[in-house]
Amino acid sequence: MKEKSLAVHSKLRGKIEVKSKVQVNNSEELSLYYSPGVAVPSSAIAEERSLVAEYTGRCNTVAIVSDGTAVLGLGDIGPYGALPVMEGKSMLFAEFAGISAYPLVINSTCDQDVIDFCKMLEPSVGGILLEDIKAPNCVNIEQTLIKELDIPVFHDDQHGTAIVTVAALINLMRLTGKDVKDMTMVLSGTGAAGSSIARMVKNLGVKTIYGYNINGVITEDKYESYDDVVKALIDEKIITCFPNEQAKLSDAISNANIFVGVSAPNLLTAEMVKSMEKDPWIFAMANPSPEIDPQTALDSGAFFVGTGRSDFPNQVNNVLAFPGMFKGVLQSSAKIDEAMKLKVSHALASYIKTEDLNQTYILPSTLDKGVADKIAQVIIDGELNEKN
Amino acid sequence: MKEKSLAVHSKLRGKIEVKSKVQVNNSEELSLYYSPGVAVPSSAIAEERSLVAEYTGRCNTVAIVSDGTAVLGLGDIGPYGALPVMEGKSMLFAEFAGISAYPLVINSTCDQDVIDFCKMLEPSVGGILLEDIKAPNCVNIEQTLIKELDIPVFHDDQHGTAIVTVAALINLMRLTGKDVKDMTMVLSGTGAAGSSIARMVKNLGVKTIYGYNINGVITEDKYESYDDVVKALIDEKIITCFPNEQAKLSDAISNANIFVGVSAPNLLTAEMVKSMEKDPWIFAMANPSPEIDPQTALDSGAFFVGTGRSDFPNQVNNVLAFPGMFKGVLQSSAKIDEAMKLKVSHALASYIKTEDLNQTYILPSTLDKGVADKIAQVIIDGELNEKN
Repeated sequence: MKEKSLAVHSKLRGKIEVKSKVQVNNSEELSLYYSPGVAVPSSAIAEERSLVAEYTGRCNTVAIVSDGTAVLGLGDIGPYGALPVMEGKSMLFAEFAGISAYPLVINSTCDQDVIDFCKMLEPSVGGILLEDIKAPNCVNIEQTLIKELDIPVFHDDQHGTAIVTVAALINLMRLTGKDVKDMTMVLSGTGAAGSSIARMVKNLGVKTIYGYNINGVITEDKYESYDDVVKALIDEKIITCFPNEQAKLSDAISNANIFVGVSAPNLLTAEMVKSMEKDPWIFAMANPSPEIDPQTALDSGAFFVGTGRSDFPNQVNNVLAFPGMFKGVLQSSAKIDEAMKLKVSHALASYIKTEDLNQTYILPSTLDKGVADKIAQVIIDGELNEKN
Repeated sequence: MKEKSLAVHSKLRGKIEVKSKVQVNNSEELSLYYSPGVAVPSSAIAEERSLVAEYTGRCNTVAIVSDGTAVLGLGDIGPYGALPVMEGKSMLFAEFAGISAYPLVINSTCDQDVIDFCKMLEPSVGGILLEDIKAPNCVNIEQTLIKELDIPVFHDDQHGTAIVTVAALINLMRLTGKDVKDMTMVLSGTGAAGSSIARMVKNLGVKTIYGYNINGVITEDKYESYDDVVKALIDEKIITCFPNEQAKLSDAISNANIFVGVSAPNLLTAEMVKSMEKDPWIFAMANPSPEIDPQTALDSGAFFVGTGRSDFPNQVNNVLAFPGMFKGVLQSSAKIDEAMKLKVSHALASYIKTEDLNQTYILPSTLDKGVADKIAQVIIDGELNEKN
């Protein structure tokens, strides 16, 4: 894989390219698409700004913005190292949703700089996908931009995995007839992705969520040591502090129904899975090595195992969510909020017919190019319904 | 033209699009181009930054950055109105040079914001084309960025027309056997384009350049009223102050050999052309209406007339310069400086064989897609020669 990946990247010199939609072969075409013809739509937009949607590609264009501080599992490798990843995201936008996406990796890790950059960029694009920005900065950056910009802003690392995880939970309920309202979940990892998962899962109805992070099981006595993101999850009663302040992960997990890991390899042991309620649901999404080997989890009684890996069933991958969601919000005037994210989870879940669901087919394939259209259509139809 | 331009722009909804160079049809491809395979080139670049040229499209990617303050002849119409023009420039980059260009119109007209934006953007692109930024701000912005960035930065409105004008002067010398070293030129318009033309033409060897702008003929007594750009042209003895402080344009033009206008329609009269030296060369480049009707200039004795119009011979258009020049500097490590601009002028001029030159064929057609390759090759070969 290593040599092959370097070889294809070196051969391609960039996985994406900007192409003209039209050919310029005679002076009439040059005059029409460029000078002097282009003055006509320019003047029209200058008079009535909303016409930018009519005469330019803005509403099918997204900026992918990263400061390179939390790239894949590699961490803070800087903007240059982040560029191949952002080109990959742009490739996925093009391939799965027909959206033009500019991969923009920027030379500052200061929150305010990232915010200013995105605000200056607003006239150029119909939406902004924030990528691979470290927690807790990403939360402040995203929340500020959502407040201050008129275009949709979405930090994929926070909400992408959350949307797909919730879709899987919805389908597990459809398959088993069980309800998450009766369930206890343990969340391992409370950074960018974990905090968004906690919120969405709580909105879905999960009764109790216990948290676990680098400081151990989340308990009340350690409150002051947590960052603002975790404090907010506790304050808003999304995460429940574990009653036993001496508890280890194994204590929190005993008798739980769901484990969701966005943390580190091999945290979850066979014994812990065995100590859970009957037929537990396991999301072991640390990349590239999951919290537990999927087969070990199944052998220990798990009803369902989802991972981030493409070589195992039930791959939980952001690519199932962001292309279709952006296609939908760009073609409508919908905002991305908690309700929208839950709507996307439901649309994604409903892509699989109930009779087709089984333990190894809870989520659509990440390669299925019909998923994005389905999600986009649900968003557009939803907006139409609200208007009527 | 008006309705047709709106119709095609509305039909296209953007003249450019970002496409994937590869298809993603199976999980091996997804793993190779995206996660986890993309971690390999990302890690390599994080260790050795120069590998970004090897594993990404950065070195064939340009940002077109505008604040929308001086768009075509429309003036300060803002970033939204500027977007169709920048999409047009991106279209030309794609069609004429195979370069990916992101049209980025930004929401601030403060010099420092434009500078900060471009500096943050540097890791994403191999070069920056500044567009339609008003004078004198554009000069400060460009000079600061050239100093502070390692990638080529070029304000097309300043130097594009200058490069093509100088190419035309070179070919007029080849055709007529005359030398500009013996000539006097009158420059009408001393803003972004005019100041760069003055510098390049002086470097080419023109003996005397008189200036004319909204305050009349440039003379020493009005020095304090000029902006920094004009003051610099006087201080550096590029523009010669006209000796008669009461002079009108007609006085400055009498007995001159060359008129270059980047100013306003109908400034130049038939009588003024008749008062020039025999067989004068006229560049009447105000858009869309030139400083003098081309046929009137010819009827009044002009040997040559160049304009910005595509419906008249000798079209002086930036598209002859920027695609090839960027293709050349992106593929080499050459800088864009005065010497490079002059080199591009010579390369552009040499595209026409001496025996093919005539009064209506001094510049290649703006539609000739071989021009950019020729210019790029001259730049790349030039760098190779310097290294050997």
